[in-house]
Amino acid sequence: MKVVKFGGSSLASGVQVKKVLDIVVSDPERRIVVVSAPGKRHSDDIKVTDLLIECAGQHLEYGEAVELENAIVGRYDNIAQDLHLPESVTEQIRTDLHELLKGDKSNPERYLDAVKASGEDNNAKLIAAYFQSQGLDARYVNPWEAGLIVSNEPGYVKVLPESYDALYRLREQSGIIVFPGFFGYSENREVITFSRSGSDITGSILANGTKADLYENFTDVDAVYSVNPNVVYNPTEIRELTYREMRELSYAGFSVFHDEALIPAFRAGIPVNIKNTNNPAAEGTRIVNRRDNKNGPVIGIAGDSGFCSIYVSKYLMNREIGFGRRLLQILEESGLSYEHVPSGIDDISIVLRQRQMDQDLEDKIVSRIYEELHADEVKIEHDLSLIMVVGEGMRHNVGTTAKASEALAKAKVNIEMINQGSSEVSMMFGVKNKDETKAIQALYEEFFSKATVLK
Amino acid sequence: MKVVKFGGSSLASGVQVKKVLDIVVSDPERRIVVVSAPGKRHSDDIKVTDLLIECAGQHLEYGEAVELENAIVGRYDNIAQDLHLPESVTEQIRTDLHELLKGDKSNPERYLDAVKASGEDNNAKLIAAYFQSQGLDARYVNPWEAGLIVSNEPGYVKVLPESYDALYRLREQSGIIVFPGFFGYSENREVITFSRSGSDITGSILANGTKADLYENFTDVDAVYSVNPNVVYNPTEIRELTYREMRELSYAGFSVFHDEALIPAFRAGIPVNIKNTNNPAAEGTRIVNRRDNKNGPVIGIAGDSGFCSIYVSKYLMNREIGFGRRLLQILEESGLSYEHVPSGIDDISIVLRQRQMDQDLEDKIVSRIYEELHADEVKIEHDLSLIMVVGEGMRHNVGTTAKASEALAKAKVNIEMINQGSSEVSMMFGVKNKDETKAIQALYEEFFSKATVLK
Repeated sequence: MKVVKFGGSSLASGVQVKKVLDIVVSDPERRIVVVSAPGKRHSDDIKVTDLLIECAGQHLEYGEAVELENAIVGRYDNIAQDLHLPESVTEQIRTDLHELLKGDKSNPERYLDAVKASGEDNNAKLIAAYFQSQGLDARYVNPWEAGLIVSNEPGYVKVLPESYDALYRLREQSGIIVFPGFFGYSENREVITFSRSGSDITGSILANGTKADLYENFTDVDAVYSVNPNVVYNPTEIRELTYREMRELSYAGFSVFHDEALIPAFRAGIPVNIKNTNNPAAEGTRIVNRRDNKNGPVIGIAGDSGFCSIYVSKYLMNREIGFGRRLLQILEESGLSYEHVPSGIDDISIVLRQRQMDQDLEDKIVSRIYEELHADEVKIEHDLSLIMVVGEGMRHNVGTTAKASEALAKAKVNIEMINQGSSEVSMMFGVKNKDETKAIQALYEEFFSKATVLK
Repeated sequence: MKVVKFGGSSLASGVQVKKVLDIVVSDPERRIVVVSAPGKRHSDDIKVTDLLIECAGQHLEYGEAVELENAIVGRYDNIAQDLHLPESVTEQIRTDLHELLKGDKSNPERYLDAVKASGEDNNAKLIAAYFQSQGLDARYVNPWEAGLIVSNEPGYVKVLPESYDALYRLREQSGIIVFPGFFGYSENREVITFSRSGSDITGSILANGTKADLYENFTDVDAVYSVNPNVVYNPTEIRELTYREMRELSYAGFSVFHDEALIPAFRAGIPVNIKNTNNPAAEGTRIVNRRDNKNGPVIGIAGDSGFCSIYVSKYLMNREIGFGRRLLQILEESGLSYEHVPSGIDDISIVLRQRQMDQDLEDKIVSRIYEELHADEVKIEHDLSLIMVVGEGMRHNVGTTAKASEALAKAKVNIEMINQGSSEVSMMFGVKNKDETKAIQALYEEFFSKATVLK
């Protein structure tokens, strides 16, 4: 049995939805279909989820948003018409959405979640109606009925353990289940959405709950590439990579598959297959527990910009028990999450995403560090990029660091930071933003030598 | 005006003390002489400080230690006889020491400090007597009289700011001052010793307080070497290095000069000159604020063993605000100080000195991390060495990392950890203990290419 998830671009138009149907019927194992909200039809298009967020915002502020409501319903109507569905399908969506938007606004966060989730929910109903119109034994299943109950923890939404048992019962249902992605319910039946692109997570939870043999994730690329195709021309496709490798690559900007979505599949040991709705014959990329290391130590190179570092130095810092902990506490009290903490003997740097800070907060933090920790020097450096060189077994490969740092030196890229030694599957280099592209190209050339680098 | 400090081996015998006199009189700027306790005369000898610690321990336990007392007084007597000093000098030391050992034991820590400090104190009196016997205008000055008042802070002893003003008045005294190293007094006149080898610290404090032009530190080597001479044959001598470089090298095992001793000199910008009592004509090594970088980016390579790392992994750790801080708090609550915290995305390692831990403490910490932080995996890796490659300006030198890691790869040394990016003057590699020597030799060969490596 397979769980199959389709992303927004795979469901953006009637033409796309027809491809989805062909994919589902071509393999009788594809029994649970998880759908996103309609995505972009072309690069200038607006995703339904974005329209919903805007619409909910206007309702909260002005109590109405007629044009946006029409635009949203219009997206569904276009698809419904392309698929020759009866008008009643669109009308039901219009009525339900309007009622929802007019509903209880006493808790704006819950209101917003419910409105956002309607994008997937209505799409699942529409797709189920289409499947039925084509003679399939298919039906929409709501997450509350299925027992997808979650708790809202800081940082991410967590599925309650008992949900998995409840979801197992979906196996017993005959026919094809069409399930909306992106959200679950709290124990008192409030809608809780996952983080953005969270339909991947729903698919993974269902795969875990139903003990599926495979979780297929259909998107609009043939494979996960070893490096961003906007940086390197025609890069190597990755046939197979491990959960850990995927997680490290997503962290640094690989957005093909949602990182939280890996957990449920990983815990149940269910392989994930990334495939292309527009080219279903392509093998795609498999995410697995273990893989052969025959292609050398490196499987992918990713880069992400927008980091800054807070440098703190104090003579004999090293001897002060609790210095690092107190420093991290100052950040925590300002609600800042940090990424890495490279350190010297008497100095320490904290690398964090700079979008979290503005000038005021920076000033406040710098002065707290001076005052409370009696630091000798505190300074903030902006515009850093982190580059991840990822591959299983890298840790035990003498010389990978040498190859990587030599490639960077040849490209005249100065290494601002290296963080290596905790993760067994990655090596991290900090460079200035302006050097990021050059650095990635140089590393790609070193580890995937036959490639052509974009100039 | 110069402050001159002589280490234990420079004062271990009459022959050595005569060299000290020659050095002092050869330069009229050498006005303040700081002395250690008599050190080793040969490699199997026992330092007076070690005899004193043993003796105090026996007195605390049994109320007497006749043989040890005799051994200690015997060391002074040997020197006094070599120098043809009157017997009264030794007898005074015998009486004072006995009285001290029989004294107040209600606070064993203070008792031990007072006994240890007597090694330097009696030696200063002896040296002053010898200088006078040779017709010099010299006198012993006690730290309490001079106003060297300290507070006993966790981690290290701190000089009270007003001490520096008091010490400035030493400039006004005529003749040569002989000052005992290693200790100061609390505000209520209790003896507080500095950490081991703390006479270096006294010299630095006096240099700062008296605004000396130079702080000369006489020991038994011609210079600070760029690498441990037991690991590499006949290594390059360092002519000049910065305070920061010296600090980083001492951290990883360079014991020529005490790291705490750098602070007062550094704060006052007073250069430190490490020289050899047995070869005073040699230039020695100068520790300064700034130096030329003409010798390439690396000035020294040091290595230190006995580290372990606690590895913690948890899926999506990265999203949990406060995870790192709580982890460090667990260590702090067990009184552990850590050195470095390399991190991946969902894993973090804490590198610390393993002598701080035994099996019980390790088990306790591992289970606290599992229970309180819900980690997926916790493991402790033992027997790591840290290798520091040190040099000013290294940070802005494209390619230093590449050279270093290539040298290690060629020597078949696997890099367990790299920590680079906070300190501007060093790069740190973690390797297994067994690879430490091989790693240091390979790095030395790379950065100081003409050298002969010991096989």
